[in-house]
Amino acid sequence: MGEITLETRKAIFNRRSCREYTEEKISREVLEEILHAAFSAPTAVNAQPWEFVVIDDESILAKLRSKLPFANYKAPAAIVVCGNSNIGLKGQDKDLWICDCSAAMENMLICATDMGLGSLWCGIFPIGSRMQQVRDILKMPKNVNPLGMMYVGHPVNPVIGRSRYNEKVVYWQQYDPDRKHRKKDKPVVGHYS
Amino acid sequence: MGEITLETRKAIFNRRSCREYTEEKISREVLEEILHAAFSAPTAVNAQPWEFVVIDDESILAKLRSKLPFANYKAPAAIVVCGNSNIGLKGQDKDLWICDCSAAMENMLICATDMGLGSLWCGIFPIGSRMQQVRDILKMPKNVNPLGMMYVGHPVNPVIGRSRYNEKVVYWQQYDPDRKHRKKDKPVVGHYS
Repeated sequence: MGEITLETRKAIFNRRSCREYTEEKISREVLEEILHAAFSAPTAVNAQPWEFVVIDDESILAKLRSKLPFANYKAPAAIVVCGNSNIGLKGQDKDLWICDCSAAMENMLICATDMGLGSLWCGIFPIGSRMQQVRDILKMPKNVNPLGMMYVGHPVNPVIGRSRYNEKVVYWQQYDPDRKHRKKDKPVVGHYS
Repeated sequence: MGEITLETRKAIFNRRSCREYTEEKISREVLEEILHAAFSAPTAVNAQPWEFVVIDDESILAKLRSKLPFANYKAPAAIVVCGNSNIGLKGQDKDLWICDCSAAMENMLICATDMGLGSLWCGIFPIGSRMQQVRDILKMPKNVNPLGMMYVGHPVNPVIGRSRYNEKVVYWQQYDPDRKHRKKDKPVVGHYS
């Protein structure tokens, strides 16, 4: 069996929220490479419910920052990951767009990390007011549900990963309802850098 | 800016559902490496709502296969990703466990792909009957919500990625509600292999 390559492990382990970016732009080529990663995510029943709005126009980025307090970070580009409920599954399966779009977002974050870029997942779903604000700014109809917005850019400070591994929440063969583990782990900064 | 490394791009782009595995076992060391990848996923407000049940005991795997028609694939190991609602966020943020656990699952799938292993995300959430069946088999209390089960093992046939890139669902600067794109893309097999 092959060993995990150092590069991939580094990309997974070093992904970490970055909130300070330099002014340097991100090229369209790089943004499209990140989108390619998104489209490689798994999607239940091959529904492909996802849609992406890529923003590198500073006037729209400024509007997002000023109107969305939770997303008030200055980055040269953003990608909003959305689920289109006209395209996604229906009935008891309808919430699967959340899984598909989250996996697509994670692929983008890992791809950006691997490219030496900083990134941030700003949560929009499930807060209805945030979803509607984003719809209003980006001209989305009601059937388009923004899950989250990824900021991407060159980090001001190096992004160093940390391990949140917590053996208290890993069970072998079956769950143990008697195990106590209300305490969060203390992340180990730089363990995998 | 650094170029994306070939290894990481390959791992992201070559992840694809694998449903046929050889009999070869997966070591505890490899399973723990995959778990480390899971714990590197982003988690909103650092809630860490996730719990993992790792199964490599053939009698329990056989029970899962026989009782869960949607998961009737013979693999040497499985990891069930769960959200614990006692630990996760409350109120309007309560569904964020779905995003966190989906990102953790995707990290595991990419890590396994990079190790040359096959993997499969069997969806459990949001179907209530599936979730309860898994709780019953693995002795989980009601507050533990299984999102999905990852099978992992050595693939019988090589797993070759495909691109689902679809420019019809990529918008620049803002959404365009007039764009028609009901048609799914045709995946390009092996484009990134």
